[in-house]
Amino acid sequence: MDKERFQKQVDFILEADKEKNILRQTHLSGHGRRENDAEHAWHMAMMIYLLKEYSNEPFDLAKAMMMALIHDVVEIDAGDTYAYDEAGLATQREREEAAAERIFGLLPDDQRDELRALFEEFEAYETPESRIAHVMDNLQPLLLNNSNGGGDWIEHNVCKSQVMKRQGKNYLGSREIGQYTEQLINENVKKGNLRDE
Amino acid sequence: MDKERFQKQVDFILEADKEKNILRQTHLSGHGRRENDAEHAWHMAMMIYLLKEYSNEPFDLAKAMMMALIHDVVEIDAGDTYAYDEAGLATQREREEAAAERIFGLLPDDQRDELRALFEEFEAYETPESRIAHVMDNLQPLLLNNSNGGGDWIEHNVCKSQVMKRQGKNYLGSREIGQYTEQLINENVKKGNLRDE
Repeated sequence: MDKERFQKQVDFILEADKEKNILRQTHLSGHGRRENDAEHAWHMAMMIYLLKEYSNEPFDLAKAMMMALIHDVVEIDAGDTYAYDEAGLATQREREEAAAERIFGLLPDDQRDELRALFEEFEAYETPESRIAHVMDNLQPLLLNNSNGGGDWIEHNVCKSQVMKRQGKNYLGSREIGQYTEQLINENVKKGNLRDE
Repeated sequence: MDKERFQKQVDFILEADKEKNILRQTHLSGHGRRENDAEHAWHMAMMIYLLKEYSNEPFDLAKAMMMALIHDVVEIDAGDTYAYDEAGLATQREREEAAAERIFGLLPDDQRDELRALFEEFEAYETPESRIAHVMDNLQPLLLNNSNGGGDWIEHNVCKSQVMKRQGKNYLGSREIGQYTEQLINENVKKGNLRDE
């Protein structure tokens, strides 16, 4: 074992631990507390495996799962940006790039480059792995929020067009899950959980 | 999409959400709160990917990661059993088998069988995937606890032989990580964080 290499890997692993303290806007099922980034990523990776049959395209399973597991690590520095926070979204890219530089930089050079590339690939939304990872990034909070009577949307006074702007892209990764999520959104409009705008 | 099939998958995904409320004895780094099962599994799966070069044997990466992600799902019913709780360990198997029956039973039959088998394979400790998953199941809390000055061991008055009984098996999955963890344990004995028995 190259001890210096292993120590760098351990440093990254311990730094990533901080994701457990980054809270999202989504609440756990059963009207629970707010979810954190590590919990969200765990759920996403499991969903990629369980729902892989719905992908529009074949994809590398381990790669997509790892992409899900690390896609929010930059939020340790950059914080969570709510999907419908327009002001936050405007500066998100810059904040997250600086965070990626520092946090992935803790790893040995080869793994720094590999994980940085995996993170950029997720953001670019142009490969089968990134498309299916994004489907789960969107579907996971939708399922939780739907199970809680749309509480997160009501709290933030969100409208259908805002949700569809994001969730509509699910068709890129999975036409079947795209249809499912659109139907779920329409049901929440009917129930008055989402404004019909 | 077979809607009945998809609904069963969603039912499992929402049931698994409850893992975020199952607390372990380990504390987050920085002397934080107690960790939950979902956070632990997220960290483990990431570590399998990052530290795969140290496995004694080639293994199926996605399979080992999924094994890590779901290995504690039974604790939703059976609760967390602390590694050094002898009374709890005596009934753990029976409690977890009943939980596996119910929780994996939420899935469509083919996935129920697949995930149940993956869980049993982890428990049996006889394949490359289960051996490397166990290494990370052991190393992850060790790293957190070591970063916190061995606080979890001190709180539970744990001795070296108890820790080595579990952590000594790391050699089965990774000789290199086995050596690393044994050294880390010896350092904690020297520091007085672990009783030398």
